[in-house]
Amino acid sequence: MEIRKAKSYGFCFGVKRAIKIAEELKNATTIGPLIHNNEEINRLKRDFNVNTINSFEELGSVKKAIIRTHGIEKQNLEKLKQSDIELVDATCPYVTSPQKIVESMSNDGYQIVIFGDEKHPEVKGVRSYSTTTPIVVGSVEELKYKKIKRKVAVVAQTTKKVSEFQKVIDYLTPISREVRVFNTICNATFENQDAVRELSSEADVMIIIGGKNSSNTKELYNISKTNCLSSYHIENEKELDKKWFLNKNLCGISAGASTPDWIINSVISKIKEICV
Amino acid sequence: MEIRKAKSYGFCFGVKRAIKIAEELKNATTIGPLIHNNEEINRLKRDFNVNTINSFEELGSVKKAIIRTHGIEKQNLEKLKQSDIELVDATCPYVTSPQKIVESMSNDGYQIVIFGDEKHPEVKGVRSYSTTTPIVVGSVEELKYKKIKRKVAVVAQTTKKVSEFQKVIDYLTPISREVRVFNTICNATFENQDAVRELSSEADVMIIIGGKNSSNTKELYNISKTNCLSSYHIENEKELDKKWFLNKNLCGISAGASTPDWIINSVISKIKEICV
Repeated sequence: MEIRKAKSYGFCFGVKRAIKIAEELKNATTIGPLIHNNEEINRLKRDFNVNTINSFEELGSVKKAIIRTHGIEKQNLEKLKQSDIELVDATCPYVTSPQKIVESMSNDGYQIVIFGDEKHPEVKGVRSYSTTTPIVVGSVEELKYKKIKRKVAVVAQTTKKVSEFQKVIDYLTPISREVRVFNTICNATFENQDAVRELSSEADVMIIIGGKNSSNTKELYNISKTNCLSSYHIENEKELDKKWFLNKNLCGISAGASTPDWIINSVISKIKEICV
Repeated sequence: MEIRKAKSYGFCFGVKRAIKIAEELKNATTIGPLIHNNEEINRLKRDFNVNTINSFEELGSVKKAIIRTHGIEKQNLEKLKQSDIELVDATCPYVTSPQKIVESMSNDGYQIVIFGDEKHPEVKGVRSYSTTTPIVVGSVEELKYKKIKRKVAVVAQTTKKVSEFQKVIDYLTPISREVRVFNTICNATFENQDAVRELSSEADVMIIIGGKNSSNTKELYNISKTNCLSSYHIENEKELDKKWFLNKNLCGISAGASTPDWIINSVISKIKEICV
């Protein structure tokens, strides 16, 4: 069986940057996981003493804090800045961008529409920058139950599919006087998505590696399974099952933007081992 | 055979307003036809001495001029304002709106994209307000050969189909950082289009009445013929052909935004006469 990696996969710019910050700073604490990959979080804890807490209440005697790639709510960031804690902001610049847009557009009187998962930390952070009540929708269907003002500004969660974003815009165009569309979907996401689309249409079995809580990995998996029924989303090599590879000729590999190369390599080694 | 008029058809707000202006002013001259309907232009000439010239060079000794519903180029409007000619602007407010948007957005550094027919007087007028070189496209396909800047502002000719406008936006969204979508398509156009869509899916034969140079009438005809093969675009009752109505049960009637009721009534009377 041939094993082939997608033309583009894995770590994006924002994740690489955040890990570098955490490794250099050492002994710091992040509120919520730095990136959506448990394995990498464990490695940072083990090798660089980067700790993860779940809420602000747990900050206690923390001296150095890192803001995670997904960003945090504006009011919490301001509180942290006013505290004695040494603060390094590892918010991905592609997430800072929709935060700024939402702040400025809501100040200018535009109805804010955020296309994203309202429970995702990135979206929670972005929406907190709106000075008016924003509309957050995960699909165009949800938008149909919302009252929309005549002037709308729209941003997307960085990991959303552009085709779904277009549906949101298509819905808003005829019912609004002005729609300001800010394409805040990350290019790295596009590239990984395009590459998985291509590879999954050729492969017999697809292994998509990444955190189960990682939106962009889930999107890769969704794209993959539309082309290749034998698609599997795993976090690490322990989840691999020999049966998946029986009578297969081509195994495709892709990984989310927060999946480190060392995990991808472990998975590939393990596949080679069990397929002997 | 039953004859049924569409739920919405004929004169729009801008056309009614322009005709009222021309009737009240009397003895005035328009540069290019006031509206796209030859029959109505002839009536205004006969009953109110409203004359039509084809270009600015013909203005000669004209004392009173009316700006047509479609508007004119900015530089020509300014020349007229500086002349001794008494000037009344009958530009439809729904056309003035994209003119102002194009002027302000081009001043703000946005790449202007106008979705419309570059030969149409409305589009010629609107584009003249851009302070930078605008892109004018009649279809999304044409856009694919254009170099697009990162910040784009898009307007549409008032009589364009919204589904085609959405295709233009869908193309721009992934390749631009910001797309400002100004929905300048006229509601009257939507309403007439929706009504013709509904009626043509029931009717055996459809008669669409309006100027052969009228964009919105052509759109009504295009929608009609996708549902009803026996669709005909005529300017007046003289073009009717008895054969069209043989063995038909339901004849649908619609008319463009510049088609006066008196023409529609003449057509209906004639259909009744020839179908006896």
